[in-house]
Amino acid sequence: MRMRKKTWAEPFISENRDYVLDNPSEYKGKWREKLNCKGLLHVEIGCGKGDYFIGMHQRYPEDGFVAIEKDTNCAAVAAKKALQVDHESTIMINMDACNLEEWFDKNEIDIIHLNFSDPWPKKGHAKRRLSSKSFLDMYRNLLSDNGEIQMKTDNRKLFEYSVAEFSKNGWIINEINVDYRAGDVEGDTMTEYETRFVELGQPIYRMVLKK
Amino acid sequence: MRMRKKTWAEPFISENRDYVLDNPSEYKGKWREKLNCKGLLHVEIGCGKGDYFIGMHQRYPEDGFVAIEKDTNCAAVAAKKALQVDHESTIMINMDACNLEEWFDKNEIDIIHLNFSDPWPKKGHAKRRLSSKSFLDMYRNLLSDNGEIQMKTDNRKLFEYSVAEFSKNGWIINEINVDYRAGDVEGDTMTEYETRFVELGQPIYRMVLKK
Repeated sequence: MRMRKKTWAEPFISENRDYVLDNPSEYKGKWREKLNCKGLLHVEIGCGKGDYFIGMHQRYPEDGFVAIEKDTNCAAVAAKKALQVDHESTIMINMDACNLEEWFDKNEIDIIHLNFSDPWPKKGHAKRRLSSKSFLDMYRNLLSDNGEIQMKTDNRKLFEYSVAEFSKNGWIINEINVDYRAGDVEGDTMTEYETRFVELGQPIYRMVLKK
Repeated sequence: MRMRKKTWAEPFISENRDYVLDNPSEYKGKWREKLNCKGLLHVEIGCGKGDYFIGMHQRYPEDGFVAIEKDTNCAAVAAKKALQVDHESTIMINMDACNLEEWFDKNEIDIIHLNFSDPWPKKGHAKRRLSSKSFLDMYRNLLSDNGEIQMKTDNRKLFEYSVAEFSKNGWIINEINVDYRAGDVEGDTMTEYETRFVELGQPIYRMVLKK
């Protein structure tokens, strides 16, 4: 999700370093405490403009949410929105998720969300996809034993790649939907971004993975 | 694929017992020999009117094909077509595939094809689906080490069920296509039945599974 450069983005993030962390490794193993989380610990990788994790936190107020977004413009928009609502149990990181293992402890995360991730369509860029092997190995390490990955995308090729990649790396596809919004969906938040695809008649692909 | 009862079907099959076998267990472990097969041994479960295995045999003349169809009307139509072309390396069984293990030896089959199988949509009928656990256990036993299952369907719910069922039972989803005919497809036969769905804009779902 590209966005025009916002001149206010960097200063805004600098002013809100208690919400958009620049020292996430400080909370390694302590995220539940930090977020006063009594339920599950969610991590959204690539939160874009933030509508998903903000909406999900409203649905699941007991749960804690760490939202990661490397694009500073998006991260600033997301943070601005999040700060306007109850945000005691949500927090953001404006860095590249390839450092995930420095920030989270083994088995610390309950649910990892991958929503409409960059498909990196060129074969030579496959390693950058958030469902490529090196990321999957990190997720396996960081997820709790009963933890899961929830992945959603409108990108057919990314989805097909991801199913095979997860499967070949020993993950169990516990649920799959090849037209997620064709059925009744409960307990999930639909962002503006997703709504646009559904209105165009584009199927939304989704799967839930267990290690 | 339901079909009106054909009065000629049963007599036709009776007259062609060298092609529509009534004694398949006789060839257990000897199908390659029986079919003079120099390539791979394919088994199509639920061949309907036969267009798939007949077309595939034309593409892969070195391979052998055993086509199973429990519906006698369909089986007769398929056999009639198959007998009009080169059929030295194809053969049929007009019985229920639940007896597969009586007919094939451990590791004997290279590729199992499940094309547009009956979705058995009711939950209480799930065990009849050709991708339910008891069938998967049979397939695992009968497939060669490098063997695979190729599954194609237009039925979203059956596909979603099958992905999860295969995955939970330890199969590897080596390839998946959630709109198979949207891309270039090589080496596969498209039946009249499948063409009808594609013309209606219905996606065809496909996956290739390894044990």
